[in-house]
Amino acid sequence: MLLKPEDLVVASLGPCRFASPLRPTRDGGFVSDDTRILAQFELRADAPLDMSVSLEKAGPRARLYFEPAVTTAAIVTCGGLCPGLNNVIRSATLELIYNYGVQRVLGIRNGYRGLNPQSGDTPVPLTPDFVERIHYLGGTVLGTSRGPQPIAAMVDFLEQQRIDVLFCVGGDGTQRGAQEIHHEVQRRGLAKAIVGIPKTIDNDVAYVSSTFGYATALEQAEKVLRAAHTEAHSVVNGIGLVRLMGREAGFIAAGAALVSQEANFVLVPEVPFPLDGDQGFLTALERRILKRAHALIVVAEGAGQHLFPDHSARKDASGNPIHEDIGVFLRERILAHFAGRGIPVTLKYLDPSYLIRAVPANAWDMFLSDQMARYAVHAAMSGRTDVLIGTWHSHFVHLPIRTVVGQKKYMNRDDMLWTGVLASTGQPRW
Amino acid sequence: MLLKPEDLVVASLGPCRFASPLRPTRDGGFVSDDTRILAQFELRADAPLDMSVSLEKAGPRARLYFEPAVTTAAIVTCGGLCPGLNNVIRSATLELIYNYGVQRVLGIRNGYRGLNPQSGDTPVPLTPDFVERIHYLGGTVLGTSRGPQPIAAMVDFLEQQRIDVLFCVGGDGTQRGAQEIHHEVQRRGLAKAIVGIPKTIDNDVAYVSSTFGYATALEQAEKVLRAAHTEAHSVVNGIGLVRLMGREAGFIAAGAALVSQEANFVLVPEVPFPLDGDQGFLTALERRILKRAHALIVVAEGAGQHLFPDHSARKDASGNPIHEDIGVFLRERILAHFAGRGIPVTLKYLDPSYLIRAVPANAWDMFLSDQMARYAVHAAMSGRTDVLIGTWHSHFVHLPIRTVVGQKKYMNRDDMLWTGVLASTGQPRW
Amino acid sequence: MLLKPEDLVVASLGPCRFASPLRPTRDGGFVSDDTRILAQFELRADAPLDMSVSLEKAGPRARLYFEPAVTTAAIVTCGGLCPGLNNVIRSATLELIYNYGVQRVLGIRNGYRGLNPQSGDTPVPLTPDFVERIHYLGGTVLGTSRGPQPIAAMVDFLEQQRIDVLFCVGGDGTQRGAQEIHHEVQRRGLAKAIVGIPKTIDNDVAYVSSTFGYATALEQAEKVLRAAHTEAHSVVNGIGLVRLMGREAGFIAAGAALVSQEANFVLVPEVPFPLDGDQGFLTALERRILKRAHALIVVAEGAGQHLFPDHSARKDASGNPIHEDIGVFLRERILAHFAGRGIPVTLKYLDPSYLIRAVPANAWDMFLSDQMARYAVHAAMSGRTDVLIGTWHSHFVHLPIRTVVGQKKYMNRDDMLWTGVLASTGQPRW
Amino acid sequence: MLLKPEDLVVASLGPCRFASPLRPTRDGGFVSDDTRILAQFELRADAPLDMSVSLEKAGPRARLYFEPAVTTAAIVTCGGLCPGLNNVIRSATLELIYNYGVQRVLGIRNGYRGLNPQSGDTPVPLTPDFVERIHYLGGTVLGTSRGPQPIAAMVDFLEQQRIDVLFCVGGDGTQRGAQEIHHEVQRRGLAKAIVGIPKTIDNDVAYVSSTFGYATALEQAEKVLRAAHTEAHSVVNGIGLVRLMGREAGFIAAGAALVSQEANFVLVPEVPFPLDGDQGFLTALERRILKRAHALIVVAEGAGQHLFPDHSARKDASGNPIHEDIGVFLRERILAHFAGRGIPVTLKYLDPSYLIRAVPANAWDMFLSDQMARYAVHAAMSGRTDVLIGTWHSHFVHLPIRTVVGQKKYMNRDDMLWTGVLASTGQPRW
Repeated sequence: MLLKPEDLVVASLGPCRFASPLRPTRDGGFVSDDTRILAQFELRADAPLDMSVSLEKAGPRARLYFEPAVTTAAIVTCGGLCPGLNNVIRSATLELIYNYGVQRVLGIRNGYRGLNPQSGDTPVPLTPDFVERIHYLGGTVLGTSRGPQPIAAMVDFLEQQRIDVLFCVGGDGTQRGAQEIHHEVQRRGLAKAIVGIPKTIDNDVAYVSSTFGYATALEQAEKVLRAAHTEAHSVVNGIGLVRLMGREAGFIAAGAALVSQEANFVLVPEVPFPLDGDQGFLTALERRILKRAHALIVVAEGAGQHLFPDHSARKDASGNPIHEDIGVFLRERILAHFAGRGIPVTLKYLDPSYLIRAVPANAWDMFLSDQMARYAVHAAMSGRTDVLIGTWHSHFVHLPIRTVVGQKKYMNRDDMLWTGVLASTGQPRW
Repeated sequence: MLLKPEDLVVASLGPCRFASPLRPTRDGGFVSDDTRILAQFELRADAPLDMSVSLEKAGPRARLYFEPAVTTAAIVTCGGLCPGLNNVIRSATLELIYNYGVQRVLGIRNGYRGLNPQSGDTPVPLTPDFVERIHYLGGTVLGTSRGPQPIAAMVDFLEQQRIDVLFCVGGDGTQRGAQEIHHEVQRRGLAKAIVGIPKTIDNDVAYVSSTFGYATALEQAEKVLRAAHTEAHSVVNGIGLVRLMGREAGFIAAGAALVSQEANFVLVPEVPFPLDGDQGFLTALERRILKRAHALIVVAEGAGQHLFPDHSARKDASGNPIHEDIGVFLRERILAHFAGRGIPVTLKYLDPSYLIRAVPANAWDMFLSDQMARYAVHAAMSGRTDVLIGTWHSHFVHLPIRTVVGQKKYMNRDDMLWTGVLASTGQPRW
Repeated sequence: MLLKPEDLVVASLGPCRFASPLRPTRDGGFVSDDTRILAQFELRADAPLDMSVSLEKAGPRARLYFEPAVTTAAIVTCGGLCPGLNNVIRSATLELIYNYGVQRVLGIRNGYRGLNPQSGDTPVPLTPDFVERIHYLGGTVLGTSRGPQPIAAMVDFLEQQRIDVLFCVGGDGTQRGAQEIHHEVQRRGLAKAIVGIPKTIDNDVAYVSSTFGYATALEQAEKVLRAAHTEAHSVVNGIGLVRLMGREAGFIAAGAALVSQEANFVLVPEVPFPLDGDQGFLTALERRILKRAHALIVVAEGAGQHLFPDHSARKDASGNPIHEDIGVFLRERILAHFAGRGIPVTLKYLDPSYLIRAVPANAWDMFLSDQMARYAVHAAMSGRTDVLIGTWHSHFVHLPIRTVVGQKKYMNRDDMLWTGVLASTGQPRW
Repeated sequence: MLLKPEDLVVASLGPCRFASPLRPTRDGGFVSDDTRILAQFELRADAPLDMSVSLEKAGPRARLYFEPAVTTAAIVTCGGLCPGLNNVIRSATLELIYNYGVQRVLGIRNGYRGLNPQSGDTPVPLTPDFVERIHYLGGTVLGTSRGPQPIAAMVDFLEQQRIDVLFCVGGDGTQRGAQEIHHEVQRRGLAKAIVGIPKTIDNDVAYVSSTFGYATALEQAEKVLRAAHTEAHSVVNGIGLVRLMGREAGFIAAGAALVSQEANFVLVPEVPFPLDGDQGFLTALERRILKRAHALIVVAEGAGQHLFPDHSARKDASGNPIHEDIGVFLRERILAHFAGRGIPVTLKYLDPSYLIRAVPANAWDMFLSDQMARYAVHAAMSGRTDVLIGTWHSHFVHLPIRTVVGQKKYMNRDDMLWTGVLASTGQPRW
């Protein structure tokens, strides 16, 4: 993460000519454009603090680029489900209408597909009535889809619908699309703000400390781990094996294990492990079973890919690596191992998948998704574009989409999350 | 269900010589041995009511066979997990100790295995302290196991441990074991009461209206259906496919669908369905997708076995038929069907399995498991043996284990449960 | 409950001339008008079974009084909130529209108030879209109100709006109103079906075994008892005192205590108790505290009214007795008692009130409210009127409103519920 | 918050002579004593960053002051209940025993009372078996109490029991006690580490960003707000009034309102408001009711104290100001206001109190309490004393207890929390 100051300069559509109708507090309470959050703030004896890298602080600005009364905003939700999507839609709508006085807010149907006129999907007008109760629901009331759409057709649509501000709620692919829309908008010389809101239940967006949906995922995953532990602990030599989301980063697996405190082994993509041999996972598991007669294993879907021959060669249509099913693989190998040793075990395999992501947001994610949405509205109304709303150690910040796209956040072995997992599991330091 | 009156006569160890220490109400409130519950109480013009078949009412008796102060009771939990097991253990223990004055209650470890001295498992003394908080936990704190153990060894153990009363909590296999223990006890001329408490999350024990765990299973399954519906409804042509428990009876699938009100198709063992053809399931699903662009399918694990060649020939070691995985089968067939029609669909498959059964009991099952346990204690202390505690339309009754074992309860197509499913799904009447 | 056969004869608008469009099962599955459920089915040695008293079985009829295509139905929800109201609205709407083919269903706003043209409230058209997600919400989307409205004005409204079938969802006062509407309808010679759906979170409607909302109330109340027990058990001499609903019957208090298994004293209207003296509640509580150092007390709001002077003299505007606040009263008396004995105690008082009733229905109540609604539609379409949908030991039945109104259901001391409370609390048999 | 660098210097018992048995990661992963977290890291144009104020980073040290094998640790929980207490007890115990190899860990019963030999309470040995399942329970299995105990007697007890490390889990009063114990220990020249773990459901400990229990409180409070909103919205002119915890700071009220998004007015101690007059609360409420016919008000228990005459004069035995019941006061004033205007309203008052704090920790608080406990163990083993574990913008830090005691954290009107409340409620900027 060797960012240069220029990587963090946020694009703007132009000078702000309108006074904000907001009065966040009695005394004003607007955030100055100069206020920034230091990227690093840990002082170490062995390295001086780099003061040059900082992030633009998000928040309501005193002056706006867009005149609310004649502005049209639109919201699109893309990719997989994530708890908090409806909360984002609701809070963005209410912030625009009630607090800024925007009179036309559109909900794009079915992801980027709904920006392509060929889909035949028409936008739904977002009103306070429409969004009244949607924050209690999982999923997205606007619908979603995966994959790219023709950029020119989408910008045509923005022009036809007179959309000035587009909020793109989604993960890496979605933000890549947002950036391409921004480039086409720029190329045509249009004054449209393209604002990203990061959505990743895996919590793996670069430079964003926490994203909505992750806390809910941990809460749901903890219930699954509790059930698996209960199964394993109720029989002699019971083994619970739970596969959780996380193709490239183990945040959900590690976080759920840390919350649960019941896991004995956590396997994540960031920490390759030997399967066989005296230092291998199977031997460690055997020792645990012989000593305690029950064990709980949590495995991220992207863990252990080094165990498959040619694992990096296979790609799907979008160029993402195709993962082998590590859960099923481990189940077979564990059963074979214990069969070979003549130790009877009872293995229960759980793969909760969609159960974790299709639920309503929990309290923390209700908070986070509301704030993300409102900060995105502030950014857009002040004319920021090609910008993503991020969080940096409990501050909301502006990040250039161009800097974030294509990056991923990974767990560091010295992170609190991973050292916490090691403390609670006692597993080997592979 | 053509029972004869003699099928419902409950065995007794002998005359009751001790006065009960219970005072359930100010006026006594004991249940007379003569009180019975009519098996059928629906009057129809076309058939006279059969008054000859009735069930012995459960409840505290005024006089006891066992003298509490010198009685030893033991509890064993067998088979798969089911919400409410710890509640049964706790309430039986407290009823025996606090209300009857029994001074020695043992918890058998790990199912029938713990009755076999060869296992090396030793019973745990059950005390109010030990059981204080166990009702808040899923699973069974005593542990469980599957499969039979040598009958003679188990009865030897009962003799060695001076166990007078054995409560066997489990499903059909467990009750079959209980009956064999009873026969051996009888053969040896021992005065031991063997009392069954039915445990079946599938709710398919014959002559028992409702068993603990089923309500919790429906509550958990409803959450899964809600997630699957949310997934399906969030994309264009989304299909949710949920596999639920139920090898021979569809009570969980039908009950969860009825609770949820979101399912469009419910497939159960009791109602075979054609897969292909104009009247088949796939065509009905296609119509639904073309009309509404989303669908939710619930399938019991034992449904559609007629679709597999030689499906009835294969048996497992215990003689139970081996089921093909109807969920995976349907997933493939549905995807192939829509691929063949050139209709793009997104199918999400959920198989919650253990998530449904390893949780703590919900309020209804907390009630039901408590009562089951206390009625079992009443039955045992009055000297009933070879007896199972059942519920019959909101009354607790005594059932001879011999009559129940090997039977199953199935959904009738005229049952409220199935007509309710048809009303809410609108699915074809196969 | 000495009913005569004539008390259970359900009124009908006339002969059924239309074939039902329903096909509940392949073979028909309609319920014959002759089928009845025996009121009593417990056989006792000391009393012959009375076969003369039975209840008409509810369910879909083969022939209808109303022709669905030209029928207008309306639903009104009255009185206090109860989990399941939105489920009733949704299922009645969907049953009418999808299964019967009724094309006009109206939702009356704000209870009976919305039937009075003077309120200015206009009915909302109930459509599948409108009701799609309302079953996930607590409260009633139609709104509610208390108290009576002018009968003639309401029947004028029914005539103006061409409403043929009116579903009145509510408690005793609501059903009294339904009956008066029915009388006025009859007086005017109109062919309108007035069908009641019982709503009582207290579960105290006469001749109805269980009503929706009660199971959810127990589930919520159990959480409150758990919290109060946790508070009491975390300090030395901690006392938890929880006031629960139940003005005339203690079903919620007793049910919640039975579910919870943590209560040591349950005080209900049906069982008066002495406060002072050696046999009194305060002395029993003192013994418990000295022995165990913590205690949990559950008190129904209508309990202990005999402790207030002139308690029966005071009435509110509707003629209901005004209850003194037994919770606050007990709190003061308990504190005074222990202060007098020089025993330091910490008392935590909880009064969850609305928290228990404003939540969405749990799984059991989702089931029950769905079925209640669909059975009510069946009854209405077949021309039943002045009829209430009841449950009788797991069967749905028709009850004449005239027979139910003004009655109350009380706990009997020999009921399973109360004997269960005594077994788990060990409290004195007052 | 004008801290000087010396305010943040943490006391230490002496040089660390033992190598840590921990291996948090393969490469070591110990935290250096020099590593610090900058207190402020927001860059503003108008003020230079103060680099002199920083906090010592918490975490495992490479070298220890105490030799684990001969160290005795003890844990005491004091004051009111807070979700996460049992998690702290469990994780501290397991970290000490499994990871450090400490062999004697004691649980002090009933708060500081259990450190006073006169209480007769004896410590309970904390073992992995004892703590196995306690993290699933609310409350504290060790018991708690309020108020001070004689310092000398408590230090005598520490000496008698050979306790080297004492973990004091509690709020401001508890930490004041911890500091006094530390002073007495110091005066006697003993080598005992006194380590504080902050416990405040109100989240108002100075210099600590977030404490366990707060997230759970918000989650519970959100449910209460949802119920109150449902009640208010179900009738014409319905008003929900909810009183939440927060004697001096409105974190729970503001946080719950922000999560809920349903509140229309949030009243907190930090923001005094006029009751009457055109700019007053009652007029604003009236406008809301006339416009929307329902309203939800959230009031912190310490709000509006300026409305009571002589409100600051009254103190309780501990010197804390006695608060008037603002909830009951507002209820009366609101009802009087609308009665005076002839506007019929229905007001539902909810005071959930203990329901919010006696529950088990939610996922976030399970995480936070686990980490707090393990960081406290690291601090203690390295010989820190008079030290409190804090969090500073997602980093765990060491704070001198002397600096924290007697301080309070308040919401600033420019805080994200309060501006978020203003954005979602639209309430006046008093």
